[in-house]
Amino acid sequence: MDEKKETGKLLTRAVEKKIIKIIKENYMQPGDKLKNEYELAELLNVSRGTIREAIKSLISRNILEVRQGAGTFVSNKNGVPEDPLGLTFISDIKEDKKVALDLLDIRLMLEPEIAALAAVKGTTKQIKTMLEQCKIVEELIKKGEDYREADILFHKRIAQCSGNRVIENLIPIINSSVSLTINLTEDVFRQNTYKEHRAVAEAIASGDSLGAKCAMIVHLNTNRRGIEKNFSKK
Amino acid sequence: MDEKKETGKLLTRAVEKKIIKIIKENYMQPGDKLKNEYELAELLNVSRGTIREAIKSLISRNILEVRQGAGTFVSNKNGVPEDPLGLTFISDIKEDKKVALDLLDIRLMLEPEIAALAAVKGTTKQIKTMLEQCKIVEELIKKGEDYREADILFHKRIAQCSGNRVIENLIPIINSSVSLTINLTEDVFRQNTYKEHRAVAEAIASGDSLGAKCAMIVHLNTNRRGIEKNFSKK
Repeated sequence: MDEKKETGKLLTRAVEKKIIKIIKENYMQPGDKLKNEYELAELLNVSRGTIREAIKSLISRNILEVRQGAGTFVSNKNGVPEDPLGLTFISDIKEDKKVALDLLDIRLMLEPEIAALAAVKGTTKQIKTMLEQCKIVEELIKKGEDYREADILFHKRIAQCSGNRVIENLIPIINSSVSLTINLTEDVFRQNTYKEHRAVAEAIASGDSLGAKCAMIVHLNTNRRGIEKNFSKK
Repeated sequence: MDEKKETGKLLTRAVEKKIIKIIKENYMQPGDKLKNEYELAELLNVSRGTIREAIKSLISRNILEVRQGAGTFVSNKNGVPEDPLGLTFISDIKEDKKVALDLLDIRLMLEPEIAALAAVKGTTKQIKTMLEQCKIVEELIKKGEDYREADILFHKRIAQCSGNRVIENLIPIINSSVSLTINLTEDVFRQNTYKEHRAVAEAIASGDSLGAKCAMIVHLNTNRRGIEKNFSKK
């Protein structure tokens, strides 16, 4: 790479960092609109071309997103990249079941502990949001609709109650990967899901730490058996 | 985006997938050299421009890497992106300690269980590699050199003994993040580290599942206290 190109790259990286700083210092949330190219170029004292390059890179990092004709916004992907666990290289058709079970084993290590923490540490507001999400999943299941995304959000809400900021990002990463490898839509399974969710949610809401942990183990065990069953039919 | 651009993008994505397929079907390992642009264009029946675009994207996804003048190779980053946990948005100066402890709490949920699994499931070859890495870390520590990368690799080797392919990628992600937020270089800490590593390694090698789990808890607890101490001095 020639020197000029290298310098341009370093400048772009510096501008990316400054834009991230603007987002953080202004407590901007997912969906908030970023200043336009012209304003940013003025503010950061660089060319509009450099701003464009930096924005392009922040989009590829899932930090910003463009809505056609409306402008550039803070992405709701929280800067979590696609395929954060590098599964592209792990999974192949033969190994799908193995990967699904490996992911579930990780959930079994993490989520019961997280549920226990959530029961102790969740704020009133966090627990209210978690209970609401529990209801949303239940309604989707009863209507026979696709509840996978809502389900992941429910587990994320529990993680938020735990107060561990990293877990909050990690749980959706692992759970989305599970739903990539498997599709659990059987009726028996759907019925179990919302009852088990409710048991977890109620234990957390009543501050019953050990109860929440056990209820989560029961729920994940149903998922685990679902995966076994799902693959044995293929 | 106009239609032509959109079609080009879809074609590039398809070519990316085909290149990944070539890597997987030929069991190519990190460091293996990819066919050149011309050969790939011929093989996949697309233009060299499309190949170039696809390779550029695979580089940004940490699946491939370019070595100047030598060609394009399979990256040793295993397709794991930078900042997989989206920490850019979580950590700021005030919260560094919180994030470091949050990451360590996740390690405490995962690694003792993984050590226990490793003692039961590790193959002779995996355990040999793990023991060798244990020795490498010990030697670096005794020489007073930087052992952080070697340390992460030791924990990855344990994860490999567990047989869980996803854990194998997840542990380095979490552990690298810890070393980004904190630098533990005190002498007392260094001495403890290699003795504790050895205790974990020996328990795994002798198939002592509960012993390995407990030894890992002890080790991570030292890390946890180190973080507390490190930040209280600032």
